[in-house]
Amino acid sequence: MVIGQKTMFVRTAGCDYSCSWCDSAFTWDGSAKEEIRLLTPEQIDAELRELGGGAPGHVTLSGGNPALLRQLGQLIELLHESGAAVALETQGSRWQDWFVAVDELTLSPKPPSSGMKTDWAVLDQIVSRLQDAGSRFSLKVVIFDEEDLRYAAGVHERYPAVPFFLQSGNDRLLEPDAGELLRHLQARYEWLVERVMAEPGWKQVRVLPQLHAWIWGNKRGV
Amino acid sequence: MVIGQKTMFVRTAGCDYSCSWCDSAFTWDGSAKEEIRLLTPEQIDAELRELGGGAPGHVTLSGGNPALLRQLGQLIELLHESGAAVALETQGSRWQDWFVAVDELTLSPKPPSSGMKTDWAVLDQIVSRLQDAGSRFSLKVVIFDEEDLRYAAGVHERYPAVPFFLQSGNDRLLEPDAGELLRHLQARYEWLVERVMAEPGWKQVRVLPQLHAWIWGNKRGV
Repeated sequence: MVIGQKTMFVRTAGCDYSCSWCDSAFTWDGSAKEEIRLLTPEQIDAELRELGGGAPGHVTLSGGNPALLRQLGQLIELLHESGAAVALETQGSRWQDWFVAVDELTLSPKPPSSGMKTDWAVLDQIVSRLQDAGSRFSLKVVIFDEEDLRYAAGVHERYPAVPFFLQSGNDRLLEPDAGELLRHLQARYEWLVERVMAEPGWKQVRVLPQLHAWIWGNKRGV
Repeated sequence: MVIGQKTMFVRTAGCDYSCSWCDSAFTWDGSAKEEIRLLTPEQIDAELRELGGGAPGHVTLSGGNPALLRQLGQLIELLHESGAAVALETQGSRWQDWFVAVDELTLSPKPPSSGMKTDWAVLDQIVSRLQDAGSRFSLKVVIFDEEDLRYAAGVHERYPAVPFFLQSGNDRLLEPDAGELLRHLQARYEWLVERVMAEPGWKQVRVLPQLHAWIWGNKRGV
């Protein structure tokens, strides 16, 4: 729901999932342990200002799973005071009361190819709480294969009133050549578009690529 | 604002502009004269149902400039009765009362590279009427060069409260090779992203490619 947005990323460490194709596994698999830092909201805000040359207009909180952190509400409050809009992405496995303070919340339940299991009771409750609060949120499912697409159809059917996004996933996380990756990801995206076009059952859906990978390939920190 | 949306396009013929880089010039330059058909709203609705295998979930009205047609309100009403959401794109050179019935309205004023001149008084009035009506609308400027980017900054400054999109334009309308075009458009998009990232003045902006060209190249009817 925020594709193309000029934003600054803040990634939290730790995840209750371990998706087979996670493109940010360094946040939870120990491979970047030495880069994890414990920061106060004020320190994060100060660092964003320094990096961005002033107060940020838009900040995205991601992970790992940022919903593991109860105290993130304080950071969101501080960013709002600084004038920034705040987006957040989480798989929808945990509720936090500060969800309702997020300007653009993406719930991204993980399809079968991830190896994870969706807890529907928890997701149901999160969706209904956000709806009750009048929050601006959407659902997104990353797609790698036909089974994922069937899973996504089930999610869309379960929550028909929630804006729904399909995104073609990156299954070449080790491809070092950005041009080669671009050709491959374009073909994967085209496949997904054709599949969705062919089925009258898919109506109000939006189908998107992972644009960052189209530009920066598998590079980190961009 | 509707990037990636599964939609059916209805293009109206005729335009008050003649942008140098128009990618749909066939709607106004006479080159597809024999394909222009006069249809009632009911005929259009019937044709969409036949093409899509049922009632469409989402329809995009574009042109040419659809805002030249006073009677388009009847089509929008009929599409809503069929359960479709309706998006519309126009340069913002003419007001129509039915603008407020559109679910997702994109105003796309044309930058200097188009060769066109923006009538700011008209655009001011359109923006303020849409704001008064509480319409869901956004501004988009297609960018080809530095001068276009300066023009876009002026638009964003003039209407700071309106969601703002920058889109890198396709300057290779005659490139027959889709792979070659993809590489070129990716580089143009990356340039635009880098330019916007570098300027702290650009804050809540979203920067997007013309995804359809990344998939289908310069093919028509897709």
